[in-house]
Amino acid sequence: VNDIPIRIAVLGAGRIGRMHAELLAKRVPGAELACVFDVAPALAAALADELGAPIAGSVEEALGPDSDAVAICTSTATHVSLIESAARAGKHIFCEKPVSIDLDLVDRALDVVADCGVKLHVGFNRRFDPAHRSVRDAVAHGAIGQLELLRITSRDPGPPPISYLKSSGGIFMDMTIHDFDMARFVAASEVIEVYADGAARVEPALDEWGDIDTAVVVLRHHNGCITTIDNSRRAVYGYDQRVEAFGSSGMAASENPTVHSGTFRGADGGHTPVIPRFFLDRYTESYVLSWQAFVDYARAGQTSPVSGEDGRAPIVMALAAQRSLQERRPVFISEIDSRIGVQP
Amino acid sequence: VNDIPIRIAVLGAGRIGRMHAELLAKRVPGAELACVFDVAPALAAALADELGAPIAGSVEEALGPDSDAVAICTSTATHVSLIESAARAGKHIFCEKPVSIDLDLVDRALDVVADCGVKLHVGFNRRFDPAHRSVRDAVAHGAIGQLELLRITSRDPGPPPISYLKSSGGIFMDMTIHDFDMARFVAASEVIEVYADGAARVEPALDEWGDIDTAVVVLRHHNGCITTIDNSRRAVYGYDQRVEAFGSSGMAASENPTVHSGTFRGADGGHTPVIPRFFLDRYTESYVLSWQAFVDYARAGQTSPVSGEDGRAPIVMALAAQRSLQERRPVFISEIDSRIGVQP
Amino acid sequence: VNDIPIRIAVLGAGRIGRMHAELLAKRVPGAELACVFDVAPALAAALADELGAPIAGSVEEALGPDSDAVAICTSTATHVSLIESAARAGKHIFCEKPVSIDLDLVDRALDVVADCGVKLHVGFNRRFDPAHRSVRDAVAHGAIGQLELLRITSRDPGPPPISYLKSSGGIFMDMTIHDFDMARFVAASEVIEVYADGAARVEPALDEWGDIDTAVVVLRHHNGCITTIDNSRRAVYGYDQRVEAFGSSGMAASENPTVHSGTFRGADGGHTPVIPRFFLDRYTESYVLSWQAFVDYARAGQTSPVSGEDGRAPIVMALAAQRSLQERRPVFISEIDSRIGVQP
Amino acid sequence: VNDIPIRIAVLGAGRIGRMHAELLAKRVPGAELACVFDVAPALAAALADELGAPIAGSVEEALGPDSDAVAICTSTATHVSLIESAARAGKHIFCEKPVSIDLDLVDRALDVVADCGVKLHVGFNRRFDPAHRSVRDAVAHGAIGQLELLRITSRDPGPPPISYLKSSGGIFMDMTIHDFDMARFVAASEVIEVYADGAARVEPALDEWGDIDTAVVVLRHHNGCITTIDNSRRAVYGYDQRVEAFGSSGMAASENPTVHSGTFRGADGGHTPVIPRFFLDRYTESYVLSWQAFVDYARAGQTSPVSGEDGRAPIVMALAAQRSLQERRPVFISEIDSRIGVQP
Repeated sequence: VNDIPIRIAVLGAGRIGRMHAELLAKRVPGAELACVFDVAPALAAALADELGAPIAGSVEEALGPDSDAVAICTSTATHVSLIESAARAGKHIFCEKPVSIDLDLVDRALDVVADCGVKLHVGFNRRFDPAHRSVRDAVAHGAIGQLELLRITSRDPGPPPISYLKSSGGIFMDMTIHDFDMARFVAASEVIEVYADGAARVEPALDEWGDIDTAVVVLRHHNGCITTIDNSRRAVYGYDQRVEAFGSSGMAASENPTVHSGTFRGADGGHTPVIPRFFLDRYTESYVLSWQAFVDYARAGQTSPVSGEDGRAPIVMALAAQRSLQERRPVFISEIDSRIGVQP
Repeated sequence: VNDIPIRIAVLGAGRIGRMHAELLAKRVPGAELACVFDVAPALAAALADELGAPIAGSVEEALGPDSDAVAICTSTATHVSLIESAARAGKHIFCEKPVSIDLDLVDRALDVVADCGVKLHVGFNRRFDPAHRSVRDAVAHGAIGQLELLRITSRDPGPPPISYLKSSGGIFMDMTIHDFDMARFVAASEVIEVYADGAARVEPALDEWGDIDTAVVVLRHHNGCITTIDNSRRAVYGYDQRVEAFGSSGMAASENPTVHSGTFRGADGGHTPVIPRFFLDRYTESYVLSWQAFVDYARAGQTSPVSGEDGRAPIVMALAAQRSLQERRPVFISEIDSRIGVQP
Repeated sequence: VNDIPIRIAVLGAGRIGRMHAELLAKRVPGAELACVFDVAPALAAALADELGAPIAGSVEEALGPDSDAVAICTSTATHVSLIESAARAGKHIFCEKPVSIDLDLVDRALDVVADCGVKLHVGFNRRFDPAHRSVRDAVAHGAIGQLELLRITSRDPGPPPISYLKSSGGIFMDMTIHDFDMARFVAASEVIEVYADGAARVEPALDEWGDIDTAVVVLRHHNGCITTIDNSRRAVYGYDQRVEAFGSSGMAASENPTVHSGTFRGADGGHTPVIPRFFLDRYTESYVLSWQAFVDYARAGQTSPVSGEDGRAPIVMALAAQRSLQERRPVFISEIDSRIGVQP
Repeated sequence: VNDIPIRIAVLGAGRIGRMHAELLAKRVPGAELACVFDVAPALAAALADELGAPIAGSVEEALGPDSDAVAICTSTATHVSLIESAARAGKHIFCEKPVSIDLDLVDRALDVVADCGVKLHVGFNRRFDPAHRSVRDAVAHGAIGQLELLRITSRDPGPPPISYLKSSGGIFMDMTIHDFDMARFVAASEVIEVYADGAARVEPALDEWGDIDTAVVVLRHHNGCITTIDNSRRAVYGYDQRVEAFGSSGMAASENPTVHSGTFRGADGGHTPVIPRFFLDRYTESYVLSWQAFVDYARAGQTSPVSGEDGRAPIVMALAAQRSLQERRPVFISEIDSRIGVQP
């Protein structure tokens, strides 16, 4: 039975949708690209043609009998309604992050998923990066002992266009959200308090609508761990992605890889290659492994590799970070999330 | 015109043939897997089925109008006759190394290729590895100045079965041949003398038929560079593949990558990940880049990325190394290769 | 004239005094160990004997005509009165950090130094560490462009005895003070706001008197740079000392050295040596370079390598961090330091 | 008893003698600089004055009752007669390498040492380098299993003056001799055959008197290990000193340290610091540890850390390498050394 491929309809043929469709068509054993849909039919057609896959003329068609699951790769604002439609059609769901920037909508979507009994996997791919995962494993397996400090660096090689930034939901919801997920993933402990600081150093225009491009966040976890995150929209030397966990028995770290392992040494010192500049160069393997985890989960898994709750918590943290930045004080998660009773 | 894909028939569906077929089917823009052929039809059928490609019932069929080129991935003994057939059918040729272990047959094949005017690319994939290539580039672009010493380490993670070893042609023809090519590639200068030493340390039975599993080779190049190569059939820590070029202005080195960039530091020191153990983990990118070079060459290239001459020279060097080991003395290339006049 | 050695009296023959006396006796060209004094005469005698140096029976004797300068290596509580005595005796002064944990006393001492026209160098030795200094230089020389983020990690290999901790002045005054100095040194910009978080994770008893052993501090500098500091009293893998400066043109980092450069690679991965465990193993070179800077300053320098103001600012920052931790909010430097007018 | 310092007379106040005298005066617990002697009295006087040590007016005086041991740091040609004088005076002996370039003289000196019952330690300091020693230890303790390949790189930052080269005894006696010692030290197995190749690439004038500046040597050890050595008189990037041992269970390597651990990463890749350029920057610690070993041996040791036999064997290897280079063939040690019976 487990040899029957999971047929996955890709919704959205933009940059991230193209990537997922290509991976599903070529690189994921056990998965099949069922069809491609986009509100812009030409985009879908081009992608479908390139990959030799069917095109779906509508969401309904994509959710028809020829698919077992969907990959929601559309713009954030459409995620919740697509989750609901897919769940009601009985399809398992892979949804890109963030589920929504509106916490109420997230909760509504998760309720529908629960009601319909379908499986949901949120696209926090970095959990599947082997180097980051080695840090998580070192914590989970006790190699570093009691976790005391966690440090996450996440810096983009360069800022997206100002138009994108305007509609991004802000740095915490757009960029730090990956790090919020990583903090929960590595520490295996919920965050109870968030302190955020930062400034618009790269793109001063961000100031106008209250956004920043250079950020520092301090998290307090329930287990006592303190996490620091630093972000920048512009690291000229590449896509800087690091995680470091420190505890009573040692330290585990995920360092930046270089694009190859050739070096040079001359009279003025040593030279090493650049680190990857693009998220695909850095994270392709994590996306493939994420899809393998999805396939395993869809077939027979009991627990989502990245559950709805995993998709929701970073959104709460992003909202707390926004308030912290505005009010210049640490903010309790319980101030944002009514599900949490009182502050600890 | 350059958008028309090159249709490539894969001959041989063993381990290396499977890899090439899969890369051609999925990873090489501009290439198309035309069909798959193997003397064992079941093997070909399984692979063709897996990749959704046609199966060819005979070499003649594979060389029919539906292919523009062939990838010769069969056993070494069949290379020369397949090269000749393909050349006479007007197909461009990718041939796995070594072309043959019989120098006269090599010369015969190269003559046919020349007569038929087809293009030939020999499968020395390591030239396309980005780290090794960075060493070659540092030499070619003058960054290390006058090349004086070149050092190549090439150690397999573990020995192949004794049955394979018996028919491998010996370590120099089977394994060092890649390093002989690398020496010529990096130094951009022909080798004029070979000295070889070694022993059967891993598999003592090799002694019986004059083969070794642990080897050191010293090469003198025409430009004065001295290259040392060391090989082992068993590096328990992985597939150790390094190149280092030293010259008057500096040193360029291709170091081993690790499988990921996660590390650990505890009371007893630091721990780093393993290096790749399998040739595919280490060299997939080089195979893809090699195919891209083949496609470019087949379409419009003037010079083969790895010409027939490049395929021939390492065979001569392997023969010289064998004689050096037997006679315990440095051997001039001119003693092996009648094309070369007298010793320098 | 510049060949006449500076004769330096060492006050205090405890751990740090012994080190300074030995360096002055053996490793600092241009310096001479004038004499050794300690309130425990036996301690002074043992050290003087070992180094073949005179013993001073009293502070007055140490400040007599046979010394040009003093190295104040006594307990923190005695620093200010010794600074005053030395200044009034016309001696140049090297004083271990912190000058005092009482800001008023610091100011009094600096006033006396200024009145007497002697030279003062505070013992922030890490400024002279070549790796840390390379980070400062990369900032100062523009190599990283506009400084945006600064990250300082400073973790001790293990906690001192609880008795020491009780009288240490707290982690910010005892340990983070070095990092406060480093932040000002690298950023070359004053700090205007401090946020501190932390807990007693290593030595829970610290909780009783409001101290912590695991700390995170966020600093805002006047130039817009945000610095994060993390500290622990226990890094089982050694004395972890790192600095990283990130800016618009790149990143400079001071990484941990290992005790030697030997490595091992086996079937389970690579192993690298431990990092230094003791401050002397890590920082001896910085102490020697600090003394060379002192000698140059004493002879002919116009500007102190680590001035009284450099000694004072980190004390203010430590006081701000203490208040931040208590009040759970970011604290402006201007709230602590009356010299600063209003909050920026 | 073991607290009485060993009083060591330093013979020779040139570059290496100055270094040893300074280390003995300041850095070696248990050792005392007894006096300094040089055939040029002014040189001895300057050094003695600088270190506050007595000057000896003659070798006889240096071998008088005020010394327990000698450090022979004079020119190579004088080593043997000084060894004999010191041995007859009952002094323990530290002698710089090489003992002599004349094997008969070496044997004569070792005989006198044996007759007089004094202790002899030859100055192969690299054995005491912690990184190189970690490689030896990995072999000795079985961590790498059966030793199969050993690789030693030893490249000077720049050639000495041509006048020095002329009287150096040739590269094998002057430079490779350290690597010959390292090969025996790490492999713990005698060398039975030597093959040498090389050329004058840096200083073509060397050709005139049969010397080279770029060398490759292949050694066969009695235990089956094959060692390759490569040397250059000019590594523009610094003093390149590496050792790598490969065996059935893993690989141990001594890599080059950098002068500090600061790095930079910019748009064009990473930059790392230079490696040490001068032997003292690289090997000071090894010299100190060598002296500590000498002191321990002189006080109570049974076995020399670097015995007369250890001093002799590399000389034999250098002679074999010279013959190999001249005759263009591998040379058995037994062809050089009459103590060895027949070729294995």
